[in-house]
Amino acid sequence: MTAWSAVVPSRDELHEAKRVALLREAASAFTRKGFHAASLDDIAQKLGVTKAALYHYFPSKHALLRECFARALEVGFQGLARARAQGGSGREKLNNTLRFYLHEMIDELSCCVVLTEENALLPDDYVDLLKVRDRFERALRDLIREGIADGSIVPCDPKLAVFTILGAIHWVSKWFNQSGAWSADAVSTALTDLLDRMVSATPVAALPTDIRTAT
Amino acid sequence: MTAWSAVVPSRDELHEAKRVALLREAASAFTRKGFHAASLDDIAQKLGVTKAALYHYFPSKHALLRECFARALEVGFQGLARARAQGGSGREKLNNTLRFYLHEMIDELSCCVVLTEENALLPDDYVDLLKVRDRFERALRDLIREGIADGSIVPCDPKLAVFTILGAIHWVSKWFNQSGAWSADAVSTALTDLLDRMVSATPVAALPTDIRTAT
Repeated sequence: MTAWSAVVPSRDELHEAKRVALLREAASAFTRKGFHAASLDDIAQKLGVTKAALYHYFPSKHALLRECFARALEVGFQGLARARAQGGSGREKLNNTLRFYLHEMIDELSCCVVLTEENALLPDDYVDLLKVRDRFERALRDLIREGIADGSIVPCDPKLAVFTILGAIHWVSKWFNQSGAWSADAVSTALTDLLDRMVSATPVAALPTDIRTAT
Repeated sequence: MTAWSAVVPSRDELHEAKRVALLREAASAFTRKGFHAASLDDIAQKLGVTKAALYHYFPSKHALLRECFARALEVGFQGLARARAQGGSGREKLNNTLRFYLHEMIDELSCCVVLTEENALLPDDYVDLLKVRDRFERALRDLIREGIADGSIVPCDPKLAVFTILGAIHWVSKWFNQSGAWSADAVSTALTDLLDRMVSATPVAALPTDIRTAT
């Protein structure tokens, strides 16, 4: 059993892998067409599965949307945990969190435009999402306060700074093109550097003028 | 006739005033509920008019949405024209444009969350909108290039900088609360100052730590 399990994914692992593939495809469809226009048929077809198979993982289109939001926030909290473990100043922790969040959102979640589709969530899902998102935003504000206190971040209004940062980040889904000239790596690094310049106590004197050649 | 026209609005002026009131209410409803969930009945009721009266101004909900987008871009171009007329460095023109755009979006267009509802536009409207929006984005990139050339803006990738700026600005519709502690004036000034720090060649050493008391 041990030998097999090392090379053959377990049932749980297979289930999770399929679930993530589905989520990714759903996020991509919602991004391209918007939640209301995207159909489960399209998503099933893209993955080469039946709609019935799809229902096995997610009972409804709304459940898929809720999971996209949940996954995005999960990635955000992962970024926070990693940044805290890496340590450094408030500014470094903020940058490490944002870079990770951006990269995973672009790469894994097909940019997750769904983050701009919160109106399409069911009311209960929306309330649940708000609680988790507020927790994420508060954690980011705390990093800014930490940075102001340790001198790495310029004095500023932490609430406004976090709104601004998250707006810039979530907007990526509106313009990022998976088959375009900018890679997920290039965008997550360059955008983090731009936002860092906004709040850093020691803003750099120059940024890359063409991010295609920056990373 | 001349005497009357000085004190009594003309038919055209009345028509335009009603049209703007309607647009404003529609933008607000789309903001709160999302395009798909907002109903023309709600909008008509809020304004105390019949749905038939509403159709006199806009033939459909989609026409209203298209007009919200068109109006937002119109405001953007107005900001650009004013900033160009005021003159100054590329950075000053950029800041003047953004401050005006933000202020009008928040104040006149109830934040215009519709800018995040572009998926709900009819295909032809979307194509038309993209052309005008591209023109606006190109004009902003030109201001950044002008600023880099005249030394007022830090060397950076103008395309990424404009995406970042517009993301932060359009995201305001997600968090701004008309009855909250932050005024349209405070937000448009403070957010412009934050974004200015991101690209300014001479970034300020401190920003207001509480924007309620900043303006």
